[in-house]
Amino acid sequence: MNAEILCVGTELLLGDITNTNAAFLSRQLAALGIGCYYQSVVGDNAERLKESVKLAFSRADMVITTGGLGPTYDDITKETMAECFGLEMELHQPSLDHIRAVLGRLSREFTKNNEKQAYMPKGATVFENGRGTAPGLAIEGKGKLAIMLPGPPAEMTAMFEKKVRPFLQARTDKLFLSHTVHLFGIGESTVENLLHDVMTERTNPTIAPYAKQGEVQLRVTVSARDRQEAEQLLAPVVKEIQALFPEYVYGVDVGDMQTALVRLLAEKKLTLAVAESCTGGMIAARLTDPPGASKVFLSGVVSYSNQSKIDLLGVREETLLEHGAISAQTATEMARGVRRVSGADIGLAVTGIAGPDGGTPEKPVGLVFVACTGPWGEKVLELNLSRGLANERELIRGSACLHAMNLVLREVIKL
Amino acid sequence: MNAEILCVGTELLLGDITNTNAAFLSRQLAALGIGCYYQSVVGDNAERLKESVKLAFSRADMVITTGGLGPTYDDITKETMAECFGLEMELHQPSLDHIRAVLGRLSREFTKNNEKQAYMPKGATVFENGRGTAPGLAIEGKGKLAIMLPGPPAEMTAMFEKKVRPFLQARTDKLFLSHTVHLFGIGESTVENLLHDVMTERTNPTIAPYAKQGEVQLRVTVSARDRQEAEQLLAPVVKEIQALFPEYVYGVDVGDMQTALVRLLAEKKLTLAVAESCTGGMIAARLTDPPGASKVFLSGVVSYSNQSKIDLLGVREETLLEHGAISAQTATEMARGVRRVSGADIGLAVTGIAGPDGGTPEKPVGLVFVACTGPWGEKVLELNLSRGLANERELIRGSACLHAMNLVLREVIKL
Repeated sequence: MNAEILCVGTELLLGDITNTNAAFLSRQLAALGIGCYYQSVVGDNAERLKESVKLAFSRADMVITTGGLGPTYDDITKETMAECFGLEMELHQPSLDHIRAVLGRLSREFTKNNEKQAYMPKGATVFENGRGTAPGLAIEGKGKLAIMLPGPPAEMTAMFEKKVRPFLQARTDKLFLSHTVHLFGIGESTVENLLHDVMTERTNPTIAPYAKQGEVQLRVTVSARDRQEAEQLLAPVVKEIQALFPEYVYGVDVGDMQTALVRLLAEKKLTLAVAESCTGGMIAARLTDPPGASKVFLSGVVSYSNQSKIDLLGVREETLLEHGAISAQTATEMARGVRRVSGADIGLAVTGIAGPDGGTPEKPVGLVFVACTGPWGEKVLELNLSRGLANERELIRGSACLHAMNLVLREVIKL
Repeated sequence: MNAEILCVGTELLLGDITNTNAAFLSRQLAALGIGCYYQSVVGDNAERLKESVKLAFSRADMVITTGGLGPTYDDITKETMAECFGLEMELHQPSLDHIRAVLGRLSREFTKNNEKQAYMPKGATVFENGRGTAPGLAIEGKGKLAIMLPGPPAEMTAMFEKKVRPFLQARTDKLFLSHTVHLFGIGESTVENLLHDVMTERTNPTIAPYAKQGEVQLRVTVSARDRQEAEQLLAPVVKEIQALFPEYVYGVDVGDMQTALVRLLAEKKLTLAVAESCTGGMIAARLTDPPGASKVFLSGVVSYSNQSKIDLLGVREETLLEHGAISAQTATEMARGVRRVSGADIGLAVTGIAGPDGGTPEKPVGLVFVACTGPWGEKVLELNLSRGLANERELIRGSACLHAMNLVLREVIKL
């Protein structure tokens, strides 16, 4: 079975809202093993909607729509779809009762418009809306299935979870499952070159690379009869990738590097404190993003000025005079300092020039030093993160964060 | 002229990413006065992509694509579009040089794959990518125009702003100009209600409200013959809005609140230091984001643990015992402490419960205290930021940042 997603609403075409419904439904369909080759958006216009429905059914067995089920005159999805299926509309008494009850609880008047929401194509399967007035519905005919869901994401997602997923699960016999392997410190095209044969040879599981904010993710997807078979097919491929890139893989299904690091530190019962200059608090902000971060993250110091490096972290004035604020020595003293003042097991520090100003020939924009001190001793990394791109400052700061977290992660992983 | 948006990428069809590109491009087209009746998403599949391009051009004069311009074998947008237009591919030397330079700066290998990115359909207008390797391009023929942009939103939006908008503007005899008024602390529907008459009466300029990360932006757009006429038409409307919401407007065309605050502090020659608990470094990270932040931002302390509040900020143990870490008293002592240890003119502090754990009946998740101390004396704000939504933690942290910056901004603006 394959499906198309058709989102209805002029507000989407004007860009007033972002289409999160399409992403949600796509994820759900993929998880159910239902292929989806197209998503479309069309406005609240009967003719264009009818054309879009016809086109979608010419390519797919199933069409899921969102939007256009409201009470107003420009809500036309249900009526248009009924026409395409050659079905008449009739009053659906349970829906009428539900709408009356919801409006009553909201102390809102029941108008003639609301009655329209209770009319359904003959023979429709109706999905009650737990979060609003508009019911969802499914109609079938000639081997085609149309599912119509309300537009507001909160109503749509709740209805999908409670009513539509069970409705669809009862109709499929396959399951799709993915694992995502996260890599840092290697480019997408290098990964692809090294994986080329593995990737093109395989059809189940498949491997797809994505470059995402300085890292590469490899998504391994399998189609199987059940979860157990799926996991059995996925496991050797994930292992193969891990063996190919041992120094770059930092986790599987970990979401992002901060989550991977926080989990790893919690597992090893280690605490961390961070001293930041050019990243200005970004590392601390990221590390305190995952819930439960307070178990491993003790404190952070954003020592943006030289004076604050001395006052808050105990960096020696001579170090700053002799080597400068952007140096391996200063980074190391910052890491030692924040470890000392916080009492954490690990001190991590970053100092660098994010630009656009402040660079010199000896110390250009993009020069960043990352240092950490912990049970393994001390490590310092010199990086040049300049790429000469327009949003250089943002990129240097983001990249410095990832390199810093990765430096600690690589050491902790060995413990 | 009307246009269609065609986003290419299997990751969109799998729901791995949300299609923010379509919303961005739709808004931009609307602002340029270009109609858009359809958005579509198709995977990295040559045949389906070709079908989608043909369909789009059967309905529209212009098609804008995003995605599929990368170096890998499944990036096929350019090649497919060239085929539709009957154009051959040829090496575009400036693009090759640019890609080599970018990869060189990244210390990444230049592979055969990357060369593919420098091949362009004959006669294409090439848009250099300021933020990545993939160039964008436009090709024309038989009254049709195709614009192809890279998929990563940061690359795509920057390329649109710098290259594509001027390219499209040069093809219309009208100029569209916008100013954006930024408001904080008032809801979108309240703004809309108060502005209703002004908004519906006007056709040029038009006023469109956008709710964005806890703030409301009013985009005032005018169509005019030239810039001078545009500014003359815009000025009175912007003034009218400022007069309607004096306590909520924090700037015009300022981008975001951190930029507004950093500019304002620089103007008044004031320095700032920040002590953060639940926001975990986010305020420091945001305030050090605008270039030149080092002139006003001295240092930050992320005192996540109670001990660090005492050790790094001098919060009194009795205060923590008597009132708790989440209290007006602790927030105030944190603000005083960070002002003292940094020597800054202004101390700003945040403490609160971002959740999902840690809430109690007396101090529920979402309770946040914001305090600042400066030339005006001391101010404390108690907030309840819980909205009962799924991504509560993220929302509470983001909202606390905005409230904290706004607290300082409102005081500094009066000086």
